[in-house]
Amino acid sequence: MSEPTPTSLTCGVDVGGTKILAGVVDEKGAILEQVRVTSPAADASAITSAIVDLVRELDERHDIEAVGVGAAGYVDSSRSTVMFAPNIAWRDVDLRSPIEQATGLPAVIENDANAAAWGEFVHGAAGEVDSALMVTVGTGVGGGIVLDGALQRGAFGVAAEIGHLRVVPGGLLCGCGNHGCLESYASGSALVRYAREAASAGQAPGLVERAGGSVEDITGPLVTEAARAGDAAGVAAFAELGHWLGEGIASLVAVLDPAMIVLGGGVSEAGDLLLDPVRAAFRAQLTGRGHRPEAELRLATLGNQAGLIGAADLARHR
Amino acid sequence: MSEPTPTSLTCGVDVGGTKILAGVVDEKGAILEQVRVTSPAADASAITSAIVDLVRELDERHDIEAVGVGAAGYVDSSRSTVMFAPNIAWRDVDLRSPIEQATGLPAVIENDANAAAWGEFVHGAAGEVDSALMVTVGTGVGGGIVLDGALQRGAFGVAAEIGHLRVVPGGLLCGCGNHGCLESYASGSALVRYAREAASAGQAPGLVERAGGSVEDITGPLVTEAARAGDAAGVAAFAELGHWLGEGIASLVAVLDPAMIVLGGGVSEAGDLLLDPVRAAFRAQLTGRGHRPEAELRLATLGNQAGLIGAADLARHR
Repeated sequence: MSEPTPTSLTCGVDVGGTKILAGVVDEKGAILEQVRVTSPAADASAITSAIVDLVRELDERHDIEAVGVGAAGYVDSSRSTVMFAPNIAWRDVDLRSPIEQATGLPAVIENDANAAAWGEFVHGAAGEVDSALMVTVGTGVGGGIVLDGALQRGAFGVAAEIGHLRVVPGGLLCGCGNHGCLESYASGSALVRYAREAASAGQAPGLVERAGGSVEDITGPLVTEAARAGDAAGVAAFAELGHWLGEGIASLVAVLDPAMIVLGGGVSEAGDLLLDPVRAAFRAQLTGRGHRPEAELRLATLGNQAGLIGAADLARHR
Repeated sequence: MSEPTPTSLTCGVDVGGTKILAGVVDEKGAILEQVRVTSPAADASAITSAIVDLVRELDERHDIEAVGVGAAGYVDSSRSTVMFAPNIAWRDVDLRSPIEQATGLPAVIENDANAAAWGEFVHGAAGEVDSALMVTVGTGVGGGIVLDGALQRGAFGVAAEIGHLRVVPGGLLCGCGNHGCLESYASGSALVRYAREAASAGQAPGLVERAGGSVEDITGPLVTEAARAGDAAGVAAFAELGHWLGEGIASLVAVLDPAMIVLGGGVSEAGDLLLDPVRAAFRAQLTGRGHRPEAELRLATLGNQAGLIGAADLARHR
């Protein structure tokens, strides 16, 4: 009788502005157990404590080797310190040392979008290729880049900030302080803006009706639901977002030439409503089209667990 | 008495639309001998013959190990075939096999801008860093990307087409068929256009005088010369080009996060006239500025020999 092969388990943690998600992940990317708490985003030391508590809780029931943390902020090149975060109170905060000391486990800190890209690359939609661009469309637009099988973190750890590609000179003011960033035209926030603008102009009666008569109550999920039901204004809002996103992706593909582009994030749950206009704009705008092989555009498969799964794998191969 | 260490020599060839440049390069990047011929750009087999003749000529006088060719076109991922070239009659032309057969030497084919980037990375301006973005400003805008010490060719061999980042929605028509590409706003051709537009509007008397009274005779070198002498319209043309280039570079740095950006190509010979406005726009537009280390912006040091030197090194480490 042979012993069963021992399973190697690591813990992945995804820290965002609203929640902290932690899970025990095996080498095949399966999540054995998952826990979550509300993110104490305004208090950096409370976040560290919350991460430590979740890891300890999971470590009691599983034999965890290492911890990977995906953090919604700029992570330095040594994968220890969060230099800055737009929505969390991190300003040059060392996450790695306190987590390692409190848990006794080796830890790796990674940007959350990078961790999600890595998750889709090793266990999700981009499993068959060597290079992929992950585009995450949620409240904002984020990304991650894998080239020749390696996660590209950049010289200072802050690569793949694709939401801040400038697509309109002197365009809309972005939260980053610049004008005309892709994020302002192709995010979930932009989707809601397009829908509300149409509603205010009297061009979206179906959306207004669904929102109980109040334009301000039009939300992303409401637009998605309406578009799925065939509402013209809902479909048009996705078309506008998708157009900008496809053009941005065409620019990114000119630079990176990946084999695959993976669309993830909450907005991508709309599926073909998003994918079709993105693909059309991407194909129309890609430089050298007809003279080059074309990257495949796909939806992500790991949902909101991509970051956790990716962080766990980065911890395993730290 | 000890024998002198044998020198390892490879041949680098840079094939453009106007000339073919070939040289024998040692492992330190020094060019021992260099030859050139006019490029028979309209005849693909004549180009191959010309390359072979130059390599044979140099191989008679030097002990060449391998040949690296930088080609102004899309080179496939196996580094053999030029899939397409805008200014040369290459349409799916295998360069590698005929060169290897005719010379008896192993050969590597690489995109010319990639080869130049590699040259600056191993023997030029970016020698001290692990990751760099090379931006070549000539008639067009090209580029090359080195991350973690590796030249990034992309999944299909056509990465780093940074001139075709779209910077203006519905902007000027580019030779690639798209509208609003960076190349249309930040190339040597754009420099001349800015200067001629100013001249036509009566705002560049100094340039018109230098051009013998004819707006159509205003050229890039003339604008450079005038700007160096302090001509306001000449300086303004560089400022406009530099502004667009700096903004484009800010987008690219958001995506790639390199440690260094190297500006090369004919237009970069203007030095600070170009570098100052590029740097100002880059710093003003970089997302997350103040919260991240900042990539250094430098001029290239290898001039028009960067491609030849880079191709020779790629052949050495094939």
